[in-house]
Amino acid sequence: MTDVFSFDELEQAKRNHGLPLEALRYPITPPGLHYLLTHYDVPAIDPLAWRLSVSGLVERPLSITLEELRAMPAVEQIVTMECAGNGRARMHDRPVSQPWLEDGVGTARWRGALLWPILAEAGVRADAVEIVFGAGDRGIELGIEQSYQRSLSVGEALAGDALVVYEMNGEPLFPQHGFPVRLVVPGWYGMASVKWLTSVEAVDRPFRGHHQVVAYVVQKEPGDEGVPITRMLPRALMIPPGIPGFPARTRTVDPGDCVLEGRAWSGLAPVRSVEVSTDGGATWSPAELDRDLDSPFAWCRWHFSWRPEGPGEVELCCRARDEAGNEQPLRPAENLGGYVNNGVQRVRVTVRA
Amino acid sequence: MTDVFSFDELEQAKRNHGLPLEALRYPITPPGLHYLLTHYDVPAIDPLAWRLSVSGLVERPLSITLEELRAMPAVEQIVTMECAGNGRARMHDRPVSQPWLEDGVGTARWRGALLWPILAEAGVRADAVEIVFGAGDRGIELGIEQSYQRSLSVGEALAGDALVVYEMNGEPLFPQHGFPVRLVVPGWYGMASVKWLTSVEAVDRPFRGHHQVVAYVVQKEPGDEGVPITRMLPRALMIPPGIPGFPARTRTVDPGDCVLEGRAWSGLAPVRSVEVSTDGGATWSPAELDRDLDSPFAWCRWHFSWRPEGPGEVELCCRARDEAGNEQPLRPAENLGGYVNNGVQRVRVTVRA
Repeated sequence: MTDVFSFDELEQAKRNHGLPLEALRYPITPPGLHYLLTHYDVPAIDPLAWRLSVSGLVERPLSITLEELRAMPAVEQIVTMECAGNGRARMHDRPVSQPWLEDGVGTARWRGALLWPILAEAGVRADAVEIVFGAGDRGIELGIEQSYQRSLSVGEALAGDALVVYEMNGEPLFPQHGFPVRLVVPGWYGMASVKWLTSVEAVDRPFRGHHQVVAYVVQKEPGDEGVPITRMLPRALMIPPGIPGFPARTRTVDPGDCVLEGRAWSGLAPVRSVEVSTDGGATWSPAELDRDLDSPFAWCRWHFSWRPEGPGEVELCCRARDEAGNEQPLRPAENLGGYVNNGVQRVRVTVRA
Repeated sequence: MTDVFSFDELEQAKRNHGLPLEALRYPITPPGLHYLLTHYDVPAIDPLAWRLSVSGLVERPLSITLEELRAMPAVEQIVTMECAGNGRARMHDRPVSQPWLEDGVGTARWRGALLWPILAEAGVRADAVEIVFGAGDRGIELGIEQSYQRSLSVGEALAGDALVVYEMNGEPLFPQHGFPVRLVVPGWYGMASVKWLTSVEAVDRPFRGHHQVVAYVVQKEPGDEGVPITRMLPRALMIPPGIPGFPARTRTVDPGDCVLEGRAWSGLAPVRSVEVSTDGGATWSPAELDRDLDSPFAWCRWHFSWRPEGPGEVELCCRARDEAGNEQPLRPAENLGGYVNNGVQRVRVTVRA
């Protein structure tokens, strides 16, 4: 790992905060602790002037006010969302971008309207292949002025899970989480859940925007077309046990009974198991799962009883496996953008005498 | 400026987020955008088991429940709070600590009981010289296990402004802001406003704890006793105009009318004036002040009409002066801990043709 960070990385790190891992204790992440990635600036959108335009290859273009959106049948869903770049700071050859440790994750209760009835009302034409979601932000990447835009295939957009959201944890969206309205695509990495949503457009060919085909693709080599990033790979995280140091965040644990705990998720299938290693990944033991949230899209709690003996240094690890057989690798699979790193978390602790 | 940051600094930066400067548009900082500095871990405190112990050199030691605290006469106060380390990342020889840009600031409406009637009820004895405030967190610094602790002189503690707070912006404190109860000392840098407050102790000599005499003092030379940090020096900040780049946060502005705006504060006296420079600090022009918050402890808005002509590069600056004659320096005054850097903000922008 490159152990020094540039000023540009620091500027991103200071704006785009993560989940402090002790907050894994909460099933629903408290306000202000959910991870946050803002590519450009947080825009100021007047909720009274805001409209959701539904256009392109549709029978009946729509312009929906916030009041109209809130009058549609409402759905609440608890969703764990992770940044596709989570873990990037642990990668050897990361690009200059948001330097996440393992902290680019959070869970919220979102409330909004389902996307598919809105598309059904507009009537997506048979020649449409993708739905492009546009945002009310503005910035410059690779010299091109643009807004954040992402697409889903028509099939994915109509699949039933995606929400057009106006509340987070019972309150209107905070500005930084997409006020007044955002998309939430459960099970997917966060890049699909377009904040400050303003437009939904049906198009007749695959969308080639910056955040679709340049960013958020897994490339092994420069020039490689890359694999688009979609659903979250399995990951388990633990609350680092004991007490921290400052400024270096060392961990110190007393000998004797210690319950390790954390959370695990996968966007591909339910979590099947979590295992813990107290010897740096050489041997593994099963943790107990506590499915404390009633949502197919939320993380679950796990815990593991440990009895460290000191003095000594220990490297703790945890890893998740899902019902589809996906499992975390011991080391991240490197790629040019520093994406989808679900290598196991490693927490070094000093056990006192 | 040392333009690379260590892994330890990154870990702090990812946990301790700042105010994204576009959020200077809000008089009261929205939830989740107020700056946050947590030295150790955010503790989990049971509000039913929580007690505020008032002890030491008092006539009547107290143990106050949350219900009892909430039953006391309540005060609401809007307070701008800034980290004493704000601006540290811009300093040449900063120590490894929280690498703030200019973002370690925020404004909230706090609700709680005044501190002085609690002290009056306990009856501070005449031989007490300081009041020590203890927190429910835990960590290790310089090899010593400790909780965060800070003191005020008896005179400062009885001065009338300090609040024992249980609500922020109309809601119970979020865990990361000190749930269930914290101290807020208006006008002071944030280190005085002890989060997760659990104890108030009157003592007969100046407190010599880590966060009182090792951290949070201005030292010019190693071994120097240092000057304790108290009230916030004046500072003006602007919302960087135009649109940002990603990942480098460059700024691009169109030619023509542009309103520069921001906020300014001082913990020493009311803000008297804000000036803007559009030539890197060579010449200055007055901004207009808009006192939009009814609080002696809150920042005020300012704005300035600018008409950039392009193409070209411009360095924008702003600086505040308070009614006591304190003014921001053009460059930070260096000190070992990287504290109280109120050197003027410099925002480079590219004006398009």
